[in-house]
Amino acid sequence: MTTLPTPREALAPETASRHVVVAPGMCSGGSLVFGRIGDWTWEVVSASCRTNVHAARTAEGDPAYLSFYYFHVRGGDVVHPHGLTFGDELRVDSRAFQFGSQSVITLHRLAPAGLELPEGPLDPAEVYEHPHPHCLYAENFNRWIARTTAGSNRGLAQVAPADFTYQDLAPLPNAYSPRSLVGRARATGSFLPADPPGFYEAGLPQTFAYTLDVVRDLNGAGLMYFASYFAVFDTMLLRLWRALGRTDEQFLRRKVTDQKIGYFGNADPGTVFSVTIRRWRSIHSQNVEVADMALRDAATGQLIAVTSIEIDTASSGCA
Amino acid sequence: MTTLPTPREALAPETASRHVVVAPGMCSGGSLVFGRIGDWTWEVVSASCRTNVHAARTAEGDPAYLSFYYFHVRGGDVVHPHGLTFGDELRVDSRAFQFGSQSVITLHRLAPAGLELPEGPLDPAEVYEHPHPHCLYAENFNRWIARTTAGSNRGLAQVAPADFTYQDLAPLPNAYSPRSLVGRARATGSFLPADPPGFYEAGLPQTFAYTLDVVRDLNGAGLMYFASYFAVFDTMLLRLWRALGRTDEQFLRRKVTDQKIGYFGNADPGTVFSVTIRRWRSIHSQNVEVADMALRDAATGQLIAVTSIEIDTASSGCA
Repeated sequence: MTTLPTPREALAPETASRHVVVAPGMCSGGSLVFGRIGDWTWEVVSASCRTNVHAARTAEGDPAYLSFYYFHVRGGDVVHPHGLTFGDELRVDSRAFQFGSQSVITLHRLAPAGLELPEGPLDPAEVYEHPHPHCLYAENFNRWIARTTAGSNRGLAQVAPADFTYQDLAPLPNAYSPRSLVGRARATGSFLPADPPGFYEAGLPQTFAYTLDVVRDLNGAGLMYFASYFAVFDTMLLRLWRALGRTDEQFLRRKVTDQKIGYFGNADPGTVFSVTIRRWRSIHSQNVEVADMALRDAATGQLIAVTSIEIDTASSGCA
Repeated sequence: MTTLPTPREALAPETASRHVVVAPGMCSGGSLVFGRIGDWTWEVVSASCRTNVHAARTAEGDPAYLSFYYFHVRGGDVVHPHGLTFGDELRVDSRAFQFGSQSVITLHRLAPAGLELPEGPLDPAEVYEHPHPHCLYAENFNRWIARTTAGSNRGLAQVAPADFTYQDLAPLPNAYSPRSLVGRARATGSFLPADPPGFYEAGLPQTFAYTLDVVRDLNGAGLMYFASYFAVFDTMLLRLWRALGRTDEQFLRRKVTDQKIGYFGNADPGTVFSVTIRRWRSIHSQNVEVADMALRDAATGQLIAVTSIEIDTASSGCA
């Protein structure tokens, strides 16, 4: 009988490389791959910051959560979010960066196994400036939060655990900071500027209702799960595609080349959301389009999350 | 930089023990924990049967899938399916057993870390006859299948890969075989006998419609995902609970003491299901009830799956 170490324990501080065989629990048309990437973020931050992220506590002894504030994923031509299947072999490199006293940025590169890659820890310049075209890159901006009212998912506050040891992490170069991008998305309800260069708006904005799914949208702490936001936005995207006369099979073959989510609120069971979608098409390529969505609490109008999804529709065969 | 071995490579043949820190991607009110247990089954069978389960092929070179035919989970008083949260530490012991040339049975025990347990590989007598009251046990009965029509999830056939080396596994003692239980469920549409001893039926059977969720219900091979069936049945259970006047919060606090799912068919995008639920209450304890469900293709009437969920409603505070 062999006792296996947990990956968390085996991780070297700050950076790690692992070989991954894609299993059913980390791929699908749904949000499993995003959930797995998020788990790797927690592992890398635990190992890098000498903090038990999975069971962190505030100075008052209340649970503290390393919440996802911004999740950015860039799909490659070989590895992309909805293109993984059982048995695919990946090399995953991950690294956490200093980003203030209550936050952390973690970068991941998912490469096809065997791909020739630069030696050494993952370099932010590769991620932000010259990504390998075959690879998927993920950027996770996490902030420590805690509930302010027991049993409620509203009014979460920023509170870092006392033992969060971020000082030894390499700082993320300022030029790569997503703060202003995310701040603008929070202020305007979109990652896109008012009139995105190189794109024209296809059709009118549409608004759909979505009710929080009590079975699927909550995590083990009773908060709305960050990976579920991907599934919620995809549910809205599917409604849009159906309205355009596109089929479920085309939807399942979509290739996401870039997706950003900003998480600006959480929600309790029973919450009804209102989701507004705008669709932008590239003036340069008829196969490139962007779905731009804002998810609001329908009762209060509060902005809960924003996404933009850039899709190469060629693999779907969409007109 | 550390290169981590995959758990699959590190597993000893036939049996393995691992320390697990519960991460967000393996707990929730939803089906993540069942998905993770299923991934462990594939890992253990890969290691035990010298077969690359994740990328298996039939003799003709078509993909072969180690599909879930029967999933049985028994919740303990400490570890139970919807009771896990971030940071919980578990010891997970797993073992695969010989069960014919096209099937395999894998048993798992999820124990609270530090619990005193018998030495040696997981003993089926413990699982089936004298389970530890604190532990969760899972029994996975998997069969090899392949598509008979490209792109269709109907009419799947039993086909084992040529290199499936099951002969070295310990056989499961006949007394523990779930074959007749599962065969009866397939024939009758229920895991319960017509008049289950010790139970009375509460209310009339109810029937709900459910449309396959294209975003969430399919796996990375385009088949309906075994873990999604748990979420689909839970969605129906929630409807029943709401109809009884129970709240979402009560639903989220439910304690599942036993759940069985039999998988008798798969389905394509666009499929509408009809789900019939009967509710049985114990005559001995007012807190014990069983939800008994059959999921059928609404268009053809074909039985796709059956479940029974035994719930201790005391933690939910249900009347």
